[in-house]
Amino acid sequence: MHRTEDRPVILADPHARAWSPETARLRFREGLAGPTAGVAAGHTQANLIAVPADWAYDMLLFCQRNPKPCPVLDVTDAGSWTTVLADGADLRTDLPRYRVWRDGELVEEPTDVRAYWRDDLVAFLLGCSFTFEWALSTAGVPIRHVEQGRNVPMYVTGRQCRPAGRLRGPMVVSMRPVPPEHLGAAIRESSLLPAVHGGPVHCGDPAALGIEDLGRPDFGEPVAAAPDDIPVFWACGVTPQAAVMASRPPFALTHAPGQMFLTDARDEQYRVAGAG
Amino acid sequence: MHRTEDRPVILADPHARAWSPETARLRFREGLAGPTAGVAAGHTQANLIAVPADWAYDMLLFCQRNPKPCPVLDVTDAGSWTTVLADGADLRTDLPRYRVWRDGELVEEPTDVRAYWRDDLVAFLLGCSFTFEWALSTAGVPIRHVEQGRNVPMYVTGRQCRPAGRLRGPMVVSMRPVPPEHLGAAIRESSLLPAVHGGPVHCGDPAALGIEDLGRPDFGEPVAAAPDDIPVFWACGVTPQAAVMASRPPFALTHAPGQMFLTDARDEQYRVAGAG
Repeated sequence: MHRTEDRPVILADPHARAWSPETARLRFREGLAGPTAGVAAGHTQANLIAVPADWAYDMLLFCQRNPKPCPVLDVTDAGSWTTVLADGADLRTDLPRYRVWRDGELVEEPTDVRAYWRDDLVAFLLGCSFTFEWALSTAGVPIRHVEQGRNVPMYVTGRQCRPAGRLRGPMVVSMRPVPPEHLGAAIRESSLLPAVHGGPVHCGDPAALGIEDLGRPDFGEPVAAAPDDIPVFWACGVTPQAAVMASRPPFALTHAPGQMFLTDARDEQYRVAGAG
Repeated sequence: MHRTEDRPVILADPHARAWSPETARLRFREGLAGPTAGVAAGHTQANLIAVPADWAYDMLLFCQRNPKPCPVLDVTDAGSWTTVLADGADLRTDLPRYRVWRDGELVEEPTDVRAYWRDDLVAFLLGCSFTFEWALSTAGVPIRHVEQGRNVPMYVTGRQCRPAGRLRGPMVVSMRPVPPEHLGAAIRESSLLPAVHGGPVHCGDPAALGIEDLGRPDFGEPVAAAPDDIPVFWACGVTPQAAVMASRPPFALTHAPGQMFLTDARDEQYRVAGAG
């Protein structure tokens, strides 16, 4: 299948940073597609994975057992396409782009999945690292991929997640190059957001995670680093897609990597209260 | 049924504070019973609830939707009485005292549940507020019920949890009287432990939670407060027992309130990293 490459939404419309989440969802419903880093800044973005009800327990347990890559923000009731995280949203239409999976194979990347929806689908919305980019940015940490107008690079690692029932697979990470003088702030600020992956899983040599070439990410786009930058790796919400590939449930719907669901929640509400 | 009142373990054996978790589990396996506040200090204690596999998804979703009262630390595979949180532990024997529930009614409070165990039971271990007592104590906050050698008082509130499938019920809270000058530390330190209930759900007037009389807790024992103390309420891992009473699954096993499972985990590992 041809993989679709969309331009970042922020490049397509510079006003997207100031959109309300509702405006963003409506624009995506109308067909706009692209990576959502920086869109509706300050509002929480979420990964989507929907599986048939008879796989829902395995998926929820997989998330519980792997909370860094899979921090659950909401789970819908079977067949429902609404969520408590966004008033009036339709999970079948309001993401920029989706992926349709059959038996672990990616078969389609549509911008609307109403034709694929099933009455037995349970949708999981998982925290996304775009959320802590707001906190990092506020703390003065440069976000290279946003500066360069690219999707964040993501890599399949050699680390296996803890299996749950029929689900298993490797951990996927996102990578941001961080100048050494900002490393402390990057670790501290993301650690205070445990609901959106929390602190990094690794800093430095990518080989420690089994990543051979930072220039060839498995998802997203490569990002240019300054000479002194240290690569910092955070657990990534694309991990359930790697579990789908490895475990081959008969059917699944997900977001396209980097093209997230915009919730009405504010990033601050996931920050550990009382800290700082 | 006659409710069993055990003495706190710390009163029965003053050395219990310095026990290893393994020693504590062995003593409980031999039949010692009582509230475990302060036992094997610095090690993480956990609430237990085990339900038949066909109720496990509802329970896991209930926990996900109510993370403050029900922070999941581990979920066993059906029928298994072992956990990754404690090497060599047997969940059927190693808690001081259990509760056996049939159709939402408490029918027995044994110190060993091997005779009640079923091949389809899935056990949930949930974070316990005894964990943050260590952090509060280290920060200089007096823990009144420990000073007074009593079980912590717990109350059923008027706040309903978000339902999940067939499970619903009110939130249960534990209460600690805190001197005003220690309130900031109590809130900050517990907030940094989101895996064990996190920050308080309420401070001050108990009527705001629908609690009529602090002197008559629903579980545990009343605690004496100093004149200026402010009652501080944290979400409590007895909440699933209130859900069992309200939702009447055919069978469930739980710990007896205050009589927890001692894990090998250290309290510090649940503290939000990078903070403070």
